[in-house]
Amino acid sequence: MARILVLTEAELRRAVGLGEDELAAIEAVFPLISKRAGSMPPIMRIDVPEHHGEIDIKSAYLPGYAGIAVKVSAGFFDNPRRGLPSLGGLMIGLDSETGMPTSALFDNGFLTDLRTGLAGAVAAKHLARSDAAVAAVFGAGMQARMQLEALTLVRPIERAVVWARRPDGAAHFANTLATRLGIPVEAVEEGAEAAARADVLLTTTPAASPVVNRAMLHPGLHITAVGSDAETKQELDVDVIESADVFVCDSVSQSGRLGELRAALESGFDAGRAVELGQVIDGTVPGRVRDSDMTVCDLTGTGAQDTAIASLAVERCVGLGIGTAIDT
Amino acid sequence: MARILVLTEAELRRAVGLGEDELAAIEAVFPLISKRAGSMPPIMRIDVPEHHGEIDIKSAYLPGYAGIAVKVSAGFFDNPRRGLPSLGGLMIGLDSETGMPTSALFDNGFLTDLRTGLAGAVAAKHLARSDAAVAAVFGAGMQARMQLEALTLVRPIERAVVWARRPDGAAHFANTLATRLGIPVEAVEEGAEAAARADVLLTTTPAASPVVNRAMLHPGLHITAVGSDAETKQELDVDVIESADVFVCDSVSQSGRLGELRAALESGFDAGRAVELGQVIDGTVPGRVRDSDMTVCDLTGTGAQDTAIASLAVERCVGLGIGTAIDT
Repeated sequence: MARILVLTEAELRRAVGLGEDELAAIEAVFPLISKRAGSMPPIMRIDVPEHHGEIDIKSAYLPGYAGIAVKVSAGFFDNPRRGLPSLGGLMIGLDSETGMPTSALFDNGFLTDLRTGLAGAVAAKHLARSDAAVAAVFGAGMQARMQLEALTLVRPIERAVVWARRPDGAAHFANTLATRLGIPVEAVEEGAEAAARADVLLTTTPAASPVVNRAMLHPGLHITAVGSDAETKQELDVDVIESADVFVCDSVSQSGRLGELRAALESGFDAGRAVELGQVIDGTVPGRVRDSDMTVCDLTGTGAQDTAIASLAVERCVGLGIGTAIDT
Repeated sequence: MARILVLTEAELRRAVGLGEDELAAIEAVFPLISKRAGSMPPIMRIDVPEHHGEIDIKSAYLPGYAGIAVKVSAGFFDNPRRGLPSLGGLMIGLDSETGMPTSALFDNGFLTDLRTGLAGAVAAKHLARSDAAVAAVFGAGMQARMQLEALTLVRPIERAVVWARRPDGAAHFANTLATRLGIPVEAVEEGAEAAARADVLLTTTPAASPVVNRAMLHPGLHITAVGSDAETKQELDVDVIESADVFVCDSVSQSGRLGELRAALESGFDAGRAVELGQVIDGTVPGRVRDSDMTVCDLTGTGAQDTAIASLAVERCVGLGIGTAIDT
């Protein structure tokens, strides 16, 4: 009845990565989110408390896109004891004109990592000082790597500093990224030290209480926070958001529920001050006005990004003749 | 990273159907729904207005089940013009202990049809008179066929009467089902005539205004309504629900939002009178007490049924060596 293109992680890694076209594909979705073009329902969540797991489903229909991705992400926190990664996932592609399934992307979360990294680059492109040369990274996991590497697509990053809860993790990150990016990357013991040196601060931790406070701020700093995606998480002290010259997020409704905006609103932050990244991109609302401005962007991750990256990945795989076709 | 069993509609049709084990698998989930065991979030819906389409996502984690199904259903109502069916879908199976994907069931909606038919049989098993011999069916589509055939698993059905908006559809249904089931099946021109003769009335229409009214009722009748799954649909007049000795549904929250309970609540029906099928099955609340009782069951379709039927289908396919394994 339908022909499905089945793609594996290895195949998808051959097709897409941290490149200019991928960046443009992700950049294009934020104005659609802000204009409420198409349809992006709230995240669907299935809790599996017996196994310390949760499944999140994101999706979006975007007008003009041939496909709709349904993304299933799993976070099962007993997995490392079994020698398995905590995070995984897959995407299903549907034809946006007929609803018929067209592709199954068994990416093990790779496309999510990629589109999240690219969203960070989009935020920095529109909010960080154009001469930003020093990046600080909080956290030393997959998303720390993605964020730092993606940032180099849009800013002339000359050096980086990393802080993580586990010093050995930070040291390993510093070695790996220095080699990979060809720039000095230093691990430091205090977050404040890393932040003090930074033009751009990337926070990528699963922190339940703030790892960035007001004392760490300085004029000209841009912060992108990607860690919080649940009611229980918070990376930025509310003071940080209050102090920002502009507070930007991917989706006000999602950030207000699961992201950094949640705690801020609870503390009385004026919701009218929250700007969406799409509004900055399309010029509806100014982002950074002065080099000395302090800007903050919270990214919770959207189904629109999933539809965009899946669309590009499938298009590339079809063009390259990659994948296995199955007739259903 | 993971091994996925990919199954097509043809393969799934070889593995599962309207059988006793399938019936037992579906019967088992309703008490879990009513006990709020596991996790079954509200349906996620993505509207695609430009193409008269919508995508619904259902899922449930059920304790003790090895798998969790994520079911994607598509309804795109311009499809017939393209020679494609309006309804389609697929399911993804995840390991409930690790969240890793384990299977992709490209069933084109077959498993949804099946589990919906079986749920109707479960409702009749617990609510219809034990000597019910005559079935009436409203509607002549796939679910009309499924409901009637599934009913014969649980009640000694000797004859059936069908009414549909299109007389030729009803006539075709009558011929097909008479042959298939080996019983007389008659098409009639008035719904009231069909209902008058019935011990069990199965409504399977996409009606936006009621096709069953109070005048059609008689003592001893059981009605199962499976048509309404949206705020815009209603098969039963509110008087029908008010008149019932017991009103049962698969999920009070879902029926109250998308099913027959919605209009009833709006008209002042006492929510406390709505019983869940699982409560009847596990004996918490009585169903039919007297042969003369008039019983009604509204089925909106739940993610729990999807997890149950997908689990059984995958187990059968693995046992039979059916399907294609893909390493991701």
